[in-house]
Amino acid sequence: MPLLRIALAQINTAVGDLSGNAEKIIHYTEMAREKDVDLITFPELSLCGYPPEDLLLKRQFLDDCRKTLEDTVTKTSGITCVVGFPEMCGASVYNAAALIHDGKLIGIYRKVLLPNYGVFDEKRYFEPGKEGFVLVLNGVPIGINICEDSWFSDGPAKVEVQKGGARLIVNISASPYYAGKLEVREDILRKLALENECFILYNNLVGGQDELIFDGGSFVLSPKGELIANSRQFDEDMLVFDLEIAEDECPDLIPTGEVRRFSIPSVATKQKQIIPEVRGRWLDYPEEVYSALVLGVRDYVRKNGFPKVLIGISGGIDSALTAAIAVDALGAEAVVGVTMPSQFSSEGTKGDARVLSDNLGIRLISISIEQVFKSYLDMLKPIFDGMAPDVTEENIQARIRGNTLMSLSNKFGWLVLTTGNKSETAVGYCTLYGDMAGGFAVIKDVPKTLVYKLAEFKNRQAGRHVIPESTIEREPSAELRPDQKDKDSLPPYDKLDAILRAYIEQDMAYTEILKMGFDEDMVKRVIKMVDKNEYKRRQGPPGIKITPKAFGKDWRLPISNQYTKLYLSSSS
Amino acid sequence: MPLLRIALAQINTAVGDLSGNAEKIIHYTEMAREKDVDLITFPELSLCGYPPEDLLLKRQFLDDCRKTLEDTVTKTSGITCVVGFPEMCGASVYNAAALIHDGKLIGIYRKVLLPNYGVFDEKRYFEPGKEGFVLVLNGVPIGINICEDSWFSDGPAKVEVQKGGARLIVNISASPYYAGKLEVREDILRKLALENECFILYNNLVGGQDELIFDGGSFVLSPKGELIANSRQFDEDMLVFDLEIAEDECPDLIPTGEVRRFSIPSVATKQKQIIPEVRGRWLDYPEEVYSALVLGVRDYVRKNGFPKVLIGISGGIDSALTAAIAVDALGAEAVVGVTMPSQFSSEGTKGDARVLSDNLGIRLISISIEQVFKSYLDMLKPIFDGMAPDVTEENIQARIRGNTLMSLSNKFGWLVLTTGNKSETAVGYCTLYGDMAGGFAVIKDVPKTLVYKLAEFKNRQAGRHVIPESTIEREPSAELRPDQKDKDSLPPYDKLDAILRAYIEQDMAYTEILKMGFDEDMVKRVIKMVDKNEYKRRQGPPGIKITPKAFGKDWRLPISNQYTKLYLSSSS
Repeated sequence: MPLLRIALAQINTAVGDLSGNAEKIIHYTEMAREKDVDLITFPELSLCGYPPEDLLLKRQFLDDCRKTLEDTVTKTSGITCVVGFPEMCGASVYNAAALIHDGKLIGIYRKVLLPNYGVFDEKRYFEPGKEGFVLVLNGVPIGINICEDSWFSDGPAKVEVQKGGARLIVNISASPYYAGKLEVREDILRKLALENECFILYNNLVGGQDELIFDGGSFVLSPKGELIANSRQFDEDMLVFDLEIAEDECPDLIPTGEVRRFSIPSVATKQKQIIPEVRGRWLDYPEEVYSALVLGVRDYVRKNGFPKVLIGISGGIDSALTAAIAVDALGAEAVVGVTMPSQFSSEGTKGDARVLSDNLGIRLISISIEQVFKSYLDMLKPIFDGMAPDVTEENIQARIRGNTLMSLSNKFGWLVLTTGNKSETAVGYCTLYGDMAGGFAVIKDVPKTLVYKLAEFKNRQAGRHVIPESTIEREPSAELRPDQKDKDSLPPYDKLDAILRAYIEQDMAYTEILKMGFDEDMVKRVIKMVDKNEYKRRQGPPGIKITPKAFGKDWRLPISNQYTKLYLSSSS
Repeated sequence: MPLLRIALAQINTAVGDLSGNAEKIIHYTEMAREKDVDLITFPELSLCGYPPEDLLLKRQFLDDCRKTLEDTVTKTSGITCVVGFPEMCGASVYNAAALIHDGKLIGIYRKVLLPNYGVFDEKRYFEPGKEGFVLVLNGVPIGINICEDSWFSDGPAKVEVQKGGARLIVNISASPYYAGKLEVREDILRKLALENECFILYNNLVGGQDELIFDGGSFVLSPKGELIANSRQFDEDMLVFDLEIAEDECPDLIPTGEVRRFSIPSVATKQKQIIPEVRGRWLDYPEEVYSALVLGVRDYVRKNGFPKVLIGISGGIDSALTAAIAVDALGAEAVVGVTMPSQFSSEGTKGDARVLSDNLGIRLISISIEQVFKSYLDMLKPIFDGMAPDVTEENIQARIRGNTLMSLSNKFGWLVLTTGNKSETAVGYCTLYGDMAGGFAVIKDVPKTLVYKLAEFKNRQAGRHVIPESTIEREPSAELRPDQKDKDSLPPYDKLDAILRAYIEQDMAYTEILKMGFDEDMVKRVIKMVDKNEYKRRQGPPGIKITPKAFGKDWRLPISNQYTKLYLSSSS
C-alpha cells in the first residue's frame, strides 16, 4: 500500500497581510519538505486571512491576492500544497483552494457550499463552485473540500468519493469557535467519514480576528470515524502523519463534469518513516473558553499594533478576570490597571483592586474621580435644579471613568480593554461611553455565571488566589450610589443567564421560556430589557465570541423595533 | 377594452408593529374601495415592516405574521389586494406577496431574486421562489414581482409575460434611498417595460428605518417606457389610476410549472370614471437629499418614542444644518439646543449659536465646560506630569460635551442627535464618546461639500438666512485649541470629498485615484486615515444613508486589517 505523509499546517494568518501570510506559508512548506512530507495543506483563505469581509469587493485586493499566489507558487517546489485564496475569474469571485505541485499551479478547487447565516456572509462575496476535485497523489485519490462543503451529506465529498474515487477528503477550513464547537465539528465530520467510508483530514485556521476566534484543533478521522491524530487548540501547529492507504482502484476513471481529477507523482524523495502524531485529548471546559479569551486578546492587541493595554480595575470580578486574561495573553508588563474610586467605592473593592494588581504583578494607577464628579454636578446644577438624583448621576461617574481611561489611552497609546460581561450587555446594565468605553470587550460574550467559573478556573490553575477570594465572594455591585447591589435591578444571575441563553442563543419564544419554569414577570422584564438596549450594544466595542450567538455579526436586530410590545402582550 | 382601476398604496410601516401595519393596510383598503378600485397593492413585507432583519429568525415572529395576515385577509372584502409578508412554510421562509380577493387568500407569490449585497442580507433569511404568478383580474393578466425580481431581464417578469400572458407587471418594493436612486430605478424598470412590452406598476415603501430611508416615489410606466403616473416622494401616498388595456389574449393558457395563473372577476361594483393622477416632476437635488434627512429624523425619533431631541450647537455649519433638519422634522418645540463654550470658543461661533437658535425658534441652553475641563486637567496632572498637551486634551473637551449632552438626555429623556458629517467620519476627524456621542447621526453620510449645499438650499427655501451667513462663510474649525483650523489637519474639503467618494463609494484603487489628478501624498494620507479609523466608526451611532455606500450595513470592513500597508507600498 502506498504511504502518504501529510502535514496539516494550522497557521495564524492576519487579514490583509498578504505578504506576511505568504511568508508563513512558504516557511511551513520548507519545514514540511524537511520532514519528507508529500502533501501540506493550509486553511481556508489563508493567503489573505479570514474573514476578509468587504476587502473582497476591492478589485485591487483580488489582484494583489493573485500576484501573491503566483509568487508563492514559485517558492514552493519539491512538495504538493493546498492553499486557500480568493480567486477572481472575470466578474466572479470564488472561495478557492490552489493545488500547487512542485512549484506549479496545477489546479483550482472552488468551494461549493457557501454559508450565509450566523457570522457568515459568503454569498455576499462568492459564487459557488460547481464541481468536485480529486488530486491523485502517488496513486492515492484525495478529494478537496473547503469548510462548509463537508457539513452536508450531499456536498462535493460525495461525488469526489463516488465518481472521483477519492479515498480521503482534505477539508481546509476557517471555522469560528464557540464553546462546544469542536464536538459539533467532530460529529459532523465523523458522519461524513462513515457515509463515504473515507479518511477525513480537517485543517482548521487558528487565531483571533476582531470578534472571531479560530481555535485550531485540526484532526484526522479514519473511515470508521475514529480520531487518529489531532493538533493543538488555540495555537499554531503542524500536524504531520503517515497514512497507509489502498491504491487508487480506478486509475482510468473518466471525469464526469461533476468532478475533476488530476494525477501527479509525489516529489518527496527521502526515506519514509512513520511519525506518530497524536496530541491527546482536547481541553476541558472552561479551560477551553479561557484559552479562547487569551488568544482573542493577544491577537487583537498584536494585530492592531498596541504596545500595552489599560484596564479599569474596580475590585469586582469582571475587571479582575479581564486583567488575568490580559496578563496571560500579553505578560504583566504590557498590562496597566487604573483604579478610579469615588465616594461610593467600598474599602473592600479598593483593597481588592490593589491585591489583584499585586497578584498579577501589574502597574496600578490610582485616580480619584471625586473632584471631577463634583465639578459636573456644579455645572449641571442650574439645569437640574430641584430634580432628584437618578441614573443620570450614576452615568456621569461611569463616564468620567470612561473619559479618564480614554485620556490615558490617547496620551500613552495604550488600548483600553472593557470589562462588561454578556449578562449586563444583554440587559443594558452598563453605561454607554462609560464602562462601555474602550477598544475591545474581552468578556462581552461571557455570561456572569461563567465569569465566576473562569475566575475559579484561573485560581485553580495558578494554585493560588490570583483573583482574591473576597472579589469572588462579594455580592456584585456597580457602586454608583450608596448600598447599590446588582440584585436590586436584575434577577439573580443564575436565572437571568438561563433566560438570556434561551432567548438570545436559542431564539426561544416567550411562551417556551415560561415553560422552563420561570416567573412570568421576570421573563417579560428580561426580554424587554434585551430588546430596548439594542441601541447601546450597537455602539459597544467588538469583543470575543465564545457562545453560539454573540452580540456581533451573528446578531442583527433592528433598533427601531415595535415587536416586543405585541410579542409580550399577545403571548400572555 | 376592460378598464382596471389600480391603487398603489405607498405606506409608512414600522418594523415589528404587525397590528399597526395591518390596521394601516385595512385603512387604505377601505379608502380604495370607496374609490371603486379593483386592485390595491402594498409594499414588500409591508405587514412586518422592512427590513425585519433577525426578527425573521424567530419562529414566533413568523407565526405572528401568519396570524396577522389571516386576520387582515378577513377584513379586506370587496376588493383585490397584494400584500407583502414573510411566509413560513415548513423550515423555509419566503419573501412573499399574499394575493387576497374579496376577503379570501387566493394565492401566494414568492420572491425569486434575493439581493445579498450592499445593505441587503436576504439570502440570510429567505429561500428563493421558483415560479412566476399571474393574476387574471377582470380578464387582464397581471404578473406579480417583488423588488429585485424586476431588476434583471431574466427574472420572473419574463415568464409571466411570455408564458403567463401578463400585460402588466406589479412590482411591490422596499427600495432604500440614495441620491439619484430614483433615476436608477426608472431606468431599470423602463428597460423591463420595453423588453416585455408591458405596463410596469412600481409600488415602493416610504419611511425611515434605522439607517435606511425608503423614499416612496411609486410610479407607472407604459409599455413604451413613458412615466404615466407617479406618487409623492418621502411621504405616504395612494396613487390611484385607471388603465384601459386589451383583454387577455390567451384565457385558456395552461400553466407550465414556470408560472402559476389564477383568474378572478373584480368585485368593485360602482360606476367607473377615469381619475387623472400625475403628480408632476420629481424633487430636484439637493432638495431630495434634504427631504430624505428630514424623514429619517422624524421616523427614527417617532418610531423610538422620544418626545424631544437635543443637539450640541457649536456655531458651526454641521450642527446648524442638523438643527434645521430636526426643526423641519419635528417642529421647533421638540428641539433643544445646547451650547457648551470653552476658552477656545470664538465670539463668532458663540454668537452664531444664539442667532441660529433664535432663527429656528428653539430653546438654547448654555453650559460652560471650562471648570469641568480644569478639574480633569488637575486630576490627570500627576500622571501627565511634564508631557506636552496634545490631542488628549482636545478629546477631553469633546468628551465633556458628549457627557453633558448625555446627562441631559438621561435626566429629561431626550434623544441626542450627533452632528458629524461623512468627511470627518471617514477620516476619523471626530472624538469617540465626544462629538460622536448620541443616538442618531443625522448627517453621517453627508460629505462636507454637500453640507454647504444643503445649508444654502435651506436658506433659499426659507427665503432668509436661517443658518447665519457667518456660519456658512467662517473657515471650519473644531475649536479645541487656539487658532485651530480643519485645513491644518485635512486636505481642502473639495479634494477630500472627491477622494473619499472614489475610495469609499466607488471602491476605486489607489492607482486609479491618482489618475484623477490628485497629489500622491494626499491620496495616501486620506486612504490611511479612512482605514485606520474603522474602530471609531464601528462605535458610532446609526445615521441616515443618502449615498450609494454609507458607513453602516453596506460597509463591512475588518478592524484588524493589514492590507493598507501593502496596498500603499506596492502600488507606489
